[in-house]
Amino acid sequence: MADHGVKQPLLAGLNDSPLQPKTKSIDRRRFRHCRSAPAMNAFPEKTHIALSPISESVLSKLYPTFRKVVVILAIYLGIGTFCFFTVRHQIKGKKTNGILDSLYFCIVTMTTVGYGDLVPDSFTTKLLACAFVFSGMALVGLILSRAADYLVEKQETLMVKAIHSNHTIGTTEMMKEIETNRVRYKLLMVTTFLVLLMLTGTVFLYKVENLNLVDSFYCVCSTITTLGYGDKSFSTKGGRIFAVFWILTSTICLGQFFLYLAELNAEHRQRALVKWVLTLRMEKVDLEEADLDEDGVVSAAEFIIYKLKEMGKISQEDIALVMEEFEDLDADQSGTLSASDLVLAQSPRKGC
Amino acid sequence: MADHGVKQPLLAGLNDSPLQPKTKSIDRRRFRHCRSAPAMNAFPEKTHIALSPISESVLSKLYPTFRKVVVILAIYLGIGTFCFFTVRHQIKGKKTNGILDSLYFCIVTMTTVGYGDLVPDSFTTKLLACAFVFSGMALVGLILSRAADYLVEKQETLMVKAIHSNHTIGTTEMMKEIETNRVRYKLLMVTTFLVLLMLTGTVFLYKVENLNLVDSFYCVCSTITTLGYGDKSFSTKGGRIFAVFWILTSTICLGQFFLYLAELNAEHRQRALVKWVLTLRMEKVDLEEADLDEDGVVSAAEFIIYKLKEMGKISQEDIALVMEEFEDLDADQSGTLSASDLVLAQSPRKGC
Repeated sequence: MADHGVKQPLLAGLNDSPLQPKTKSIDRRRFRHCRSAPAMNAFPEKTHIALSPISESVLSKLYPTFRKVVVILAIYLGIGTFCFFTVRHQIKGKKTNGILDSLYFCIVTMTTVGYGDLVPDSFTTKLLACAFVFSGMALVGLILSRAADYLVEKQETLMVKAIHSNHTIGTTEMMKEIETNRVRYKLLMVTTFLVLLMLTGTVFLYKVENLNLVDSFYCVCSTITTLGYGDKSFSTKGGRIFAVFWILTSTICLGQFFLYLAELNAEHRQRALVKWVLTLRMEKVDLEEADLDEDGVVSAAEFIIYKLKEMGKISQEDIALVMEEFEDLDADQSGTLSASDLVLAQSPRKGC
Repeated sequence: MADHGVKQPLLAGLNDSPLQPKTKSIDRRRFRHCRSAPAMNAFPEKTHIALSPISESVLSKLYPTFRKVVVILAIYLGIGTFCFFTVRHQIKGKKTNGILDSLYFCIVTMTTVGYGDLVPDSFTTKLLACAFVFSGMALVGLILSRAADYLVEKQETLMVKAIHSNHTIGTTEMMKEIETNRVRYKLLMVTTFLVLLMLTGTVFLYKVENLNLVDSFYCVCSTITTLGYGDKSFSTKGGRIFAVFWILTSTICLGQFFLYLAELNAEHRQRALVKWVLTLRMEKVDLEEADLDEDGVVSAAEFIIYKLKEMGKISQEDIALVMEEFEDLDADQSGTLSASDLVLAQSPRKGC
């Protein structure tokens, strides 16, 4: 879970980033020192690309937006509720209202909470539940990769605006602070949200489902972790209405909490690795290796590539791909690109 | 996430470059070795560094090995079984053997399957279960980040050996093939393993727990997804012995399946992004931005950094960190590093 989880949301996080062209004026201020890619510092690993109006359209094709995910979820729940409502007489257990129970059963299944207060009681229903739990898991994964990042970014946009309107605080300093501690900040946000959800759940179960405090807390824990023993669950109509919203939100929130924790962990390790690579002694043999254009000396850019390669941030394949492009562009084969190279190399392409 | 599979081996391959005569023998060994070193692949594009004997020891400190994870799991299950055994009279439900039931309850809880065939029946036990489910989730996450990669790497080591001993096949070609399709290959392996686990589970439940075929399959699905309604579960002594091994393996296997699926997806996206960035027209303004040393032309290395930054593979922060180091090393402030710079810059450090 550790690393993959970490990265997926980052990748997906791009679209709703507050760093979109619309807010370009903010970006400029924010990353004055960055020469090319304003969006870069926000997501350390791989998703920092220079956002332009073109890139936005390309990215929206590459990464599903939060809105798209919500639409998929609505369709999923619609179909699920309809299916389980159709076979409602083949589901046994404590029932309240037909449609509500179907939706509740659908949510309890897709989040893998599986209390067992409602269970399929025919071959069809059992196989249907199997189909819905697998697709539900995939969908929850998709939501996980979008939801909390979306909230965090919304929050950040507000923050950027607040800072922007309050010029007494050093904007750049503040943003830098937020950026370097971004993961920590995301973890803090999601933890706060999680605690609030747990409190709401406990109070609700205590008040509405008439459980005692320990049982309420126990049911909350059993639910958000998707454990769902089922000895305590939502059995009233009001409880199930609350449950359909609360279960989905809280299970996803806990998932996100673990993802951010893993991300923080990975970040610490990455920093240790970077620190270590930077303290390595450079030997003559390293110089030779770093010397890409073989002119006998290592330029700053060559040194950067060499060290980033050592840190594992870029690979020989990445370099080879870009080198091909460079050679295509270097029309006069001088080993450097100048404006005249671009004119020569790119002019035939204008027709495209 | 996207390209790490691709990157790892390529970097290792890089060490075979003739530019690195001194460490050649070590690196060669490492090239094969790194596939068996589980510590490396778990944290994808972050850990592939030009490896030397020193780095290996540093890495083992940074990343927990598979063996360490197994030890942690054993300790967790030991403590869990002991605790639940101590409070076994405060757990209600279908019982077989005291210690076995405690272990089974511990596994069902930590994997969040939570059938509910055994449920806590006192405040203490309920709170204990809460504690164990949270820590169990974290532990399962840790295992997820290590286990399947470990298996895949073991398999790959065997494959590399097989290829190596059979010189009629082009080793490099074959390795390249495996490496570019690494994620696909991992997904295939984990899917095969998952199908085998599901078959074993279904056959076992059919034969030993006397469920019919649909119910067996339903119970298998309900378990591996951690849904665990609990209407069908392992109720016999033999069943629970099987369950403690099978539940842990299969839930982790399904988790890994989803992770690899996400990884494959991210890889496709990353490739599309790289392709798109490479086809972007270079304008004069891009040249200016790419020109790190401001000498009016863009060298190959500068071009590479510019494009990789656009692809989001490296960030301004990464560059700034390495630049600092470069400036420290550039003793004569010529803007390039030569052997004499190294002697000047690094000699005072010798005493450290």
